[in-house]
Amino acid sequence: MTGRTPARFTADDYRARMERAVRAAGDAGLAGLLVAPGPDLVWLTGYAPPAATERLTLLLLTPDRDPVLVVPALEAPDAAAAAGAPALTLRDWTDGKDPYAATTALLDTGGRYGVSDNAWALHLLRLQKALPDSSYASLTEALPMLRAVKDAAELELMAAAGAAADATYEEIRKVPFAGRRESEVGADLAGLLRRFGHSQVDFTIVASGPNGANPHHEVGDRVIEHGDMIVLDFGGLKDGYGSDTSRTVHVGEPTDEERRVHDLVREAQEAGFRAVRPGVACQEVDRAARAVIADAGYGEYFIHRTGHGIGVTTHEPPYMIEGEEQPLVPGMCFSVEPGVYLPGRFGVRIEDIVTVTEDGGRRLNDTTRELVIVD
Amino acid sequence: MTGRTPARFTADDYRARMERAVRAAGDAGLAGLLVAPGPDLVWLTGYAPPAATERLTLLLLTPDRDPVLVVPALEAPDAAAAAGAPALTLRDWTDGKDPYAATTALLDTGGRYGVSDNAWALHLLRLQKALPDSSYASLTEALPMLRAVKDAAELELMAAAGAAADATYEEIRKVPFAGRRESEVGADLAGLLRRFGHSQVDFTIVASGPNGANPHHEVGDRVIEHGDMIVLDFGGLKDGYGSDTSRTVHVGEPTDEERRVHDLVREAQEAGFRAVRPGVACQEVDRAARAVIADAGYGEYFIHRTGHGIGVTTHEPPYMIEGEEQPLVPGMCFSVEPGVYLPGRFGVRIEDIVTVTEDGGRRLNDTTRELVIVD
Repeated sequence: MTGRTPARFTADDYRARMERAVRAAGDAGLAGLLVAPGPDLVWLTGYAPPAATERLTLLLLTPDRDPVLVVPALEAPDAAAAAGAPALTLRDWTDGKDPYAATTALLDTGGRYGVSDNAWALHLLRLQKALPDSSYASLTEALPMLRAVKDAAELELMAAAGAAADATYEEIRKVPFAGRRESEVGADLAGLLRRFGHSQVDFTIVASGPNGANPHHEVGDRVIEHGDMIVLDFGGLKDGYGSDTSRTVHVGEPTDEERRVHDLVREAQEAGFRAVRPGVACQEVDRAARAVIADAGYGEYFIHRTGHGIGVTTHEPPYMIEGEEQPLVPGMCFSVEPGVYLPGRFGVRIEDIVTVTEDGGRRLNDTTRELVIVD
Repeated sequence: MTGRTPARFTADDYRARMERAVRAAGDAGLAGLLVAPGPDLVWLTGYAPPAATERLTLLLLTPDRDPVLVVPALEAPDAAAAAGAPALTLRDWTDGKDPYAATTALLDTGGRYGVSDNAWALHLLRLQKALPDSSYASLTEALPMLRAVKDAAELELMAAAGAAADATYEEIRKVPFAGRRESEVGADLAGLLRRFGHSQVDFTIVASGPNGANPHHEVGDRVIEHGDMIVLDFGGLKDGYGSDTSRTVHVGEPTDEERRVHDLVREAQEAGFRAVRPGVACQEVDRAARAVIADAGYGEYFIHRTGHGIGVTTHEPPYMIEGEEQPLVPGMCFSVEPGVYLPGRFGVRIEDIVTVTEDGGRRLNDTTRELVIVD
């Protein structure tokens, strides 16, 4: 967490989001929402404590009263300064007091509550103990689409974050690769993301040669060599909204096989993108991309889902994965990022953030998806 | 999380920690421990995934089988590279599969399990659903002292982190304060912590004038003025272990009241420190420090507990707080940090990390606690 979302959202915006969340909770059969520090709290209130800790901070959204934010007394001044603070009531508690009893006194026995995915087990277990006859479900299970559909102001911020990531790719193509460590190129990526306006860099994957076959390899000490395929995957937050793009480059001329695998992933990414339109189930995006790779005989080497939602955090619902029947809705934003990973040899991944419009998908990343040759 | 703990701990060290944890769990009546990414997992295995996410990563420690680490397939190569990996069995799972059923198949129906404090609610709720007849307790509740007593190698790392924070204080005293923003001095603190070997900076509080009355104020745009009291509180991780120290400085000569309040907090800090010896309850440390401040009539302005444990994370049990009856044990490390906060005016906090020895407390921070005058 890096502080507050940009001042462009006002207390009225946050009030509207909280009201919408309460209505959605009611429609989903929930008695209310229990929101912990993290992306849900930032999105609903603009408040981001410096860290999630053992001290309880919790936003209570219930239909029968105004929003209440329970905060440790020593963080109350920061909470009161958040953009959304005028739209809620602060209830602070002091070290040594039991914040759980005071919190559950505001909730209904027997109700079912949605809880932020990333709420600490420490806090959930204490709430469960204090209010044992209520039940609890994660927001991903109970209200997965709470933040999924972005409004016009959010889409503008998402597009700006995507453009900054694209500018980063245009620049990183120009740096020397061969003879430098992955970690050095990773530092270049981080510097460029910040230069183009990111306040937070979440990942800078530079996976060269055989490291490319490990989809979550970050950066290492490996010195990049002539002839390497290199997966680049980078992103973070700009003005509170996320970027995430991948391109695969090659140092010098690729082999026929390297080019063939790259073309295959590009075709799969295009197929995933083309599947995007309102009403289509998320799993159809995954199926469309996966079919291209499977038909070419590489199915066993595409070892992850095709995409994840993105917004005030870089991984959130909806997920583009087999079994996800959620229909796409205009305003949703998510990655389309198929890959092929050949153990011990190399990997290829191509990723854009895509938003759903009435007419189909719109890419928020649009640098070339051709195989770029770097030095 | 910033990667792995230093190579100085071997697979044998991690094996010994896991064995000790299983024995402690058994003694506490637990069927086992469920350990999520974060400080517990780093301490037990040396493994720190780049981020805690919606994909389940969980270490299972049970008496009847070797440790099992459940990881997403795409992170398995990183997990296999952790220093503690030879002491455990990796079980990876692929996107689209249900990792919860496979995990709970390894657990006992009806058992009581300890869960990392910071495990995500998303994961705990799914585990509870998959194994409803078992019960769950946070490690802070069920096994709070798991990481509290440091061994000789850990104490050496804690002392080195403390020395680096002390070196930072010696340098920051020399920088100009008046006329600069808090955020600029905060950046100086971060740079110094890194220069003295910190790999991660967790907080750099520079709370000047009235901002000092907000104990968790980080840094702001306020320009520091002549005549300000300034609370400095900074720390992070060096070689995987934490630092955390506070000193209060003054720009130019203080008023009599400012000096009196500073002397009072210094006396309270000394009283807290002197209360430290094996067998004394944690709350006695809090009481000793608090009594000094209360007796002087400032009790209502000391609005937080006196201290928190520290190790591979900067906040952990034991807590020096009223109601905590845990006896002190040699090897425990925690802060002693009383403060006085006068709303709208100024604050004072003085903090050292203290470790318990057979003979009493030993400070791991030892810069002067006199009021230092800065420019």
